[in-house]
Formats: sequence, structure tokens, C-alpha cells
Amino acid sequence: MFTFANRHFSLSATLTIGFVAVILLGTLLLTLPISTAHGIQSSFITALFTATSATCVTGLTLVETSTYWSFFGQFVIMMLSEIGGLGFMTFMVLMFTSSRRKLRLSTQLLAQESLNLQHLSQIKLVKMIVGLSLGIQGIGAILLSFNFYPKYGLLKSIWFGIFHSVSAYCNAGFSLFNNSIAEFQNNTYVLVILGLLILSGSVGFLVWRDLLTYHKRHHLSLHTKLSIRTGFIILVGSIALYTLTEEGFSNISPHTSIFHKIVNILFMAVTPRTAGLVTFDYTHLSMAGIFLTMILMFIGGTPGSTAGGIKSTTIGLLAIQTWATLRGHHDVNFSGRRFPRENIYRALTLVIVAFLIISIATFVLCMTQPLAQKMGVEYIIFEVLAAFGTTGISLGLTTHLTLFGKIIIMLMMFIGRVGIFNVMYTALNAKNHQSDIRYPEEGVLIG
Amino acid sequence: MFTFANRHFSLSATLTIGFVAVILLGTLLLTLPISTAHGIQSSFITALFTATSATCVTGLTLVETSTYWSFFGQFVIMMLSEIGGLGFMTFMVLMFTSSRRKLRLSTQLLAQESLNLQHLSQIKLVKMIVGLSLGIQGIGAILLSFNFYPKYGLLKSIWFGIFHSVSAYCNAGFSLFNNSIAEFQNNTYVLVILGLLILSGSVGFLVWRDLLTYHKRHHLSLHTKLSIRTGFIILVGSIALYTLTEEGFSNISPHTSIFHKIVNILFMAVTPRTAGLVTFDYTHLSMAGIFLTMILMFIGGTPGSTAGGIKSTTIGLLAIQTWATLRGHHDVNFSGRRFPRENIYRALTLVIVAFLIISIATFVLCMTQPLAQKMGVEYIIFEVLAAFGTTGISLGLTTHLTLFGKIIIMLMMFIGRVGIFNVMYTALNAKNHQSDIRYPEEGVLIG
Ligand SMILES: [K+]
Ligand SMILES: [K+]
Repeated sequence: MFTFANRHFSLSATLTIGFVAVILLGTLLLTLPISTAHGIQSSFITALFTATSATCVTGLTLVETSTYWSFFGQFVIMMLSEIGGLGFMTFMVLMFTSSRRKLRLSTQLLAQESLNLQHLSQIKLVKMIVGLSLGIQGIGAILLSFNFYPKYGLLKSIWFGIFHSVSAYCNAGFSLFNNSIAEFQNNTYVLVILGLLILSGSVGFLVWRDLLTYHKRHHLSLHTKLSIRTGFIILVGSIALYTLTEEGFSNISPHTSIFHKIVNILFMAVTPRTAGLVTFDYTHLSMAGIFLTMILMFIGGTPGSTAGGIKSTTIGLLAIQTWATLRGHHDVNFSGRRFPRENIYRALTLVIVAFLIISIATFVLCMTQPLAQKMGVEYIIFEVLAAFGTTGISLGLTTHLTLFGKIIIMLMMFIGRVGIFNVMYTALNAKNHQSDIRYPEEGVLIG
Repeated sequence: MFTFANRHFSLSATLTIGFVAVILLGTLLLTLPISTAHGIQSSFITALFTATSATCVTGLTLVETSTYWSFFGQFVIMMLSEIGGLGFMTFMVLMFTSSRRKLRLSTQLLAQESLNLQHLSQIKLVKMIVGLSLGIQGIGAILLSFNFYPKYGLLKSIWFGIFHSVSAYCNAGFSLFNNSIAEFQNNTYVLVILGLLILSGSVGFLVWRDLLTYHKRHHLSLHTKLSIRTGFIILVGSIALYTLTEEGFSNISPHTSIFHKIVNILFMAVTPRTAGLVTFDYTHLSMAGIFLTMILMFIGGTPGSTAGGIKSTTIGLLAIQTWATLRGHHDVNFSGRRFPRENIYRALTLVIVAFLIISIATFVLCMTQPLAQKMGVEYIIFEVLAAFGTTGISLGLTTHLTLFGKIIIMLMMFIGRVGIFNVMYTALNAKNHQSDIRYPEEGVLIG
């Protein structure tokens, strides 16, 4: 037990420290004069912010990626995104399969599997995830390049294809065009490919494993069932609500054809959960649309994927628990399974800590960040949530951030990506100590 | 078991329906021409909104209480506040002592008590609470009247004393002066009395019982310990943070003496949790101060008191649970006691549902509420939280609300006061059915 706890601590710490190391290496590379388009040395804070944003697959930028950075600089950004996205995913496999402490559930999953069928070894699973991810990104890059070719020529279209395929799959949110991907607002082909890449990257390794081995195992884990169900509900819900708030995209672009409006609404519903590529300026969104986007960024995507936020399964689990409590049920059940108490406590802890961190960041920015005339408090909250959700959509505050503000936003991106638990476990050096003394129960009045 | 569940349902329903009945009766009285200062009939929606705001001890107003309503109308408002505040408190005693289903903990509390010492009967406790409350309000009224006498003469000063003592103790937030109690910004005597009345009303009946019987029982319940501890931390925290955000009140009123600045900061820290009497226009607050006030309104006061919001014990419980989970502890302990799982699940449910309701209300208002030029989205969120926390401070949106907006804010006040669980139990007609089938446990990946 003790060794498992220790092992988990060391995994959390390795992940956290590993991310710091990658970010610092990226910063070093980006401060080289060779990294900028004009061969001048970038300021340390710009390099650090960009490296953090890339590694944490967020996409908030202080400078235009297309014009400020050289090819080398852009290549560094792409590699950082790939390490941040794919590296994190494979690391989570390691964590999931080795650590008993973190996932008591994993033992159950594995137990079931070894009973029913051949279970995948750790190495095999990592290989499968990496192979699949690179394969999908490769196909995406080729398909995108075809479309870019007529306008950008051979070399540039290949480069753009690769960069945006990686950026979309890793949900990094970086773009080499002006204003994210606004110029493709009416290009259904590109939007569909990017949308599929985003979705592929955001389902997470556990879901991929279950789907890929389903023909052999005929079994989906509870995690996969809950992820898919929650993701589907959130997606359909956001399509419906964005259609409502933006009057079917007419608010944003009245003269677009109905078909393109539908495509853009679909893309809009996919991107805030963590992708960050946008087809228009989000300051044109209605107030209700901005509020909805904030909620979606807070939720984020599936755990073990390229997503940030508190994660869709957390919301799904809490929704099921809430409903059970309101109905007076004692157990929290879903799809013929009962959730362990620890699972619910972890979800609860995650939400509370996330809420606390977001509140503190917002409060501190409110106190320290001067705002331009037209900007309200929503600019700050949106920016904080975009960083925490590693979504990277901004209402335009990023370039106005003070040094202090930049540090806060970098911290939010880091926590959003590495995960509250990993950061906290590392910071608190937590062990799973069951206290010897157990106190008698006594409750308090609630609500 | 079944009867207890039924009994609890009937209590929740009685409370919910009772509040509706009181509000409707109040509305009827306020639509009488005798209720308005000019003897004209008030519109139905104005009467309904005012009756809801008074009964739910919120204090949001569409019209100036001092000039729009007659003495009779103001008397109705005061009586509605008293029923909403004190009536609710005594009803909670009934609920607490009779219902086994809602408070499994109550059995434990009672068991302990009957072991250790003579426990208070239900009737005795109700009598004690009512007597104490009326006593405190009486003293408050006399003390306030003394101060009002030189300016307002005998009759008016007595009336103002009674009205504001009731309004403060019941945390109703109504005032017969212009701009709430702004004219007393430099009147320490009045602010201290009002502050003490507010605090007395917001500690809740369980804390009062424990404190009043301490000389005999030498025992504080876990609830009382947690309430006092949490309340103290929140109070000290908000004093410190308001001092910081408002630069020691200099932001709001630069020429006030230091002593009066301190008194105003103290009053500011007390009022948002549920009272709603304010010494200045909250639009002058800094952005960080507004954000802090929102958080405090969301939290609210102690359960079983005149407070709204999700309640201080909920926050305290969740904070302790979160810390325990992060430290890897299995049990959630406080002061030599372990919290039952159900208690934590209830707290969790409360926060999730509150968050959901607030989000929906904000979203719908964002979609339907036209805003004046200078108003940002914070005007909407602030208004929703002021209603849910039954705090009643407004940035000025109340009088601009559309009919639809008024209905939403009324619903928020109602839910904030009657309580999410009571409203939900009534709406869902929930029973405590332990299902016969118990499923095997399986967890999902979180965060
Ligand atoms: K992103
Ligand atoms: K109030």
C-alpha cells in the first residue's frame, strides 16, 4: 500500500516536473534569435508564455504565431504541442496502469479484463495510442495540405497541413493564419477535417482503447460509457444553445449561407471544450453565448486526453450523484455499476479546488489588471477559464496582460493541463495514510 | 422508514406551499389601494415582487419602500419579513426535531443529548427561539429609536426603530430611508446596532440553542462548532479582502475619517452574506470588491437562520472534505468527529444544484434582458446571486428587469429562501427508497 502511494506520488511529481522541464527547454529554444522571423531575440517572458501555452496545449498568444516566429520557432511550438498533448496521454497510460493508489478502479477494470480476456500490456497500449495518434495526424495533415496547395504551393501547404493537423489533434489552438482560422469560415472541407481531428484528440486513451479492442472484448468500461454519454449530451446541448443564442450564427455573420451557418455552429460547439481554433472573433458573440462558452471551457473534455478543464466525466459523475441524492437513493449507479465513494469524493474535490483556483485568479486579476474602456469583468473571467480549460480562446485580454497577469495565466494553463491532482499531490507530497484513530460520526445541518 | 420519509416530504411540501401562501396573501394586501402612499392600486407584478422579496427576506425592490408604500404597506412588508425570517427558523426546528429522514444526524445529536442530559423538547425550543428573537428585536428597536428621535419625532422614530430592527434581525434588507442606510454611513451607533442585529439573526437556531444551554450541557454540537468556525473565518477573510480591494474604504469615500472607514469596512463584511442593508452605492465598489461580494452572496449564512445562499456549513464541510481527499485521508474529521457520507453527499448536491440554477438564471437573463449602456454582464450575475443569497444588494438592474426577468429573480429569491432541498423534494416528491438491487462498484477516470 505504502509503496503504491509512493509510486503514485513519484508519478505525479515526474509528470509535473517533466512539464516544467519541457516548458523551460521550449523557452530556451524560443529565446534563440533563430526562432523569430526577424532574427531578433525574443523577450524571456514572451518565450516562456508561448512555450507554456504550447506545452499546455492552450493556444493563448502574446504575439502572432504566423508573423512573429520563424519556421524554426513555429516548429518548436508544434513539437511542444505534440509533447504536451501526446506525451501527456501516454504518461497517463503509465499512471493508470501502474498506480493502484490513484485508481482503485483500475484494479477492478484489470481484474475484469483478465477474467474475460487477454488484457493489453502497458507497453502495447502506449504503442497503440501513439501509433493511432500519429496515424490520425498524418491523414489529417495530408487532407489539409490538399486544400492549402492551390493557394500556398507545395512546401508551405505541406507545412501548414502538418502544423494545423497537430494543432487540432492535440487541441493546441495555435494557427499560422491570421485571426485563428477565420479565413476558413466558409470552407466546410477544412472545418470538418479540423473538427474530426479535434474530436479524435479529445476522447482520451481509455475510450480509444475500449473502442479499438471492442471487436475482441465486447466490453466497454464504465469510464468509456460515461465519457461518450456525457460528451454526446454536452455536444448536442451546446449545438442547441449556440443556435439559440447566436440566432443560428446570424448574429455573427448574417450573410453566410444556411449550410455554412450550420457548419460553423457545429464547429463552435466542438471548439470551446478545449480546442481553441475559432472561425470568428469571439467579442462578436452574444452575452449569453460568452457565458455558455465560459461554462464549456470550465467543463473541458475527457480525462486522459488532450483536454483541460474539470473534465466531462467529473460533470457526468456529479450529475448522476446529484440526481441520486435528490431522489433519496443511497447508491450512485450508472449502467449497472455503482460508483465507489472515493470516486465521488475525488470529483467533488476537483470541482471545489478548481472553483477556488479560478476565483483566486479572477480576484487577483480584477485587482491588478487595468482594463481598456470597452472591457468588462467578463474579459478577465473568460481569459482565466480559457487558460484553465486549456482552450485558449480569448476576448482579447491576452496582449494587454501585465507581467503579473501573464504569470497568473501561465499558472492557470499549467494547472489546467497537468491536472489539479497531479499538481496538488506534488505540492502537498500526499500519502494515502489511513489514520489509526477513527472518530465517531456526527453530521451538521446543510442548506 | 416509509412514514418518516413521507413525513419529511410533507414537511418540505408544507414549508414550500406555506411560503407560497404567505407571498400570495402579502401580494393581495399590497395590491389594496390603502397600501400605497398615494392611495392608487399597485400593479400586480409590483405587489407580487415586493411580497416575494419581503417574505424571502431579500430586499430587492422595484419601487422605493419609503415613498411608494403607505404606512400600511410598509407594515405588511415588515410582517412578511418577520414571518419569512422567524417563521422559517421555527419551522426548521420542527423539521429538525421531527424528521428522521432529512437528518439522520439529528438522531445522533438527540441520542447524545438524551444520554448526557435533559434535552429540549420541540415546543420548548420553538418558544425559546421566538422569545429570544423578539427580545433581541425589541431591544434593537428601542436602541435605534433613541437615535432617530431628535430627527424624526416620537411616533416616526418608534416606527423606524421597529421596522429597521426587524429588517436587520430578519436580514430582510428593506429600509425606509433613501438609498438603503447611506445616511448613516458616519453614524457608528446605528451601524453597530444594525450589525449586531444582523449577526444575531444569521447564526441560526441550532447555534442559539447550544449557546443558551451551554451552562447546563457543557457541550456544543458539531454543527455549532463548524458554523462558528466557518463564520469567523469568512468574516475575518472578508474584512481583510475588502480592506485590500477598497483601499480601506478610501475608494468609496475618501474624506471619511479612519474610524468611520473601519466601521464601514466591518459593516461591509457583515452585510453581503445575507443582510442587504448597505451604506453606499455598490456600483462604486472596485471590480475585485464586486467579485468578492458575489462569492460572499453565493455562500450566504448559517442554515436554520434568516440567511440564504448555499450556507456557511456547506462550504466548511466541503473545505474539510477537500483537504482530507488531497491529503489522502480516508475519513473526513473535524473536532474529534467524523462526518457521515450522506452529509457530504448532501453538501455536494446542494452546491451542484445551486451552480446549475444560477447558471440557468444567468444564461436566460443574458438572453432576454436588455442592458443599459454602462451595464456589463456582472450586473446580471450580481442580481442573480443577490436574489439566490437573499442578500438583496443590487448594482441597479432590479428596476430595469423585464417581466420575464422579474419572474426569474422572484424564483431565485424563493429557492434561495425556502432552500434547494425543500423545493426539490417537493417538486420531485422524493422518497428515501433503498433499491433492492445493489450493483457492483466500478469507477471512472476523473480530472
Ligand atoms: K487549446
Ligand atoms: K436580505
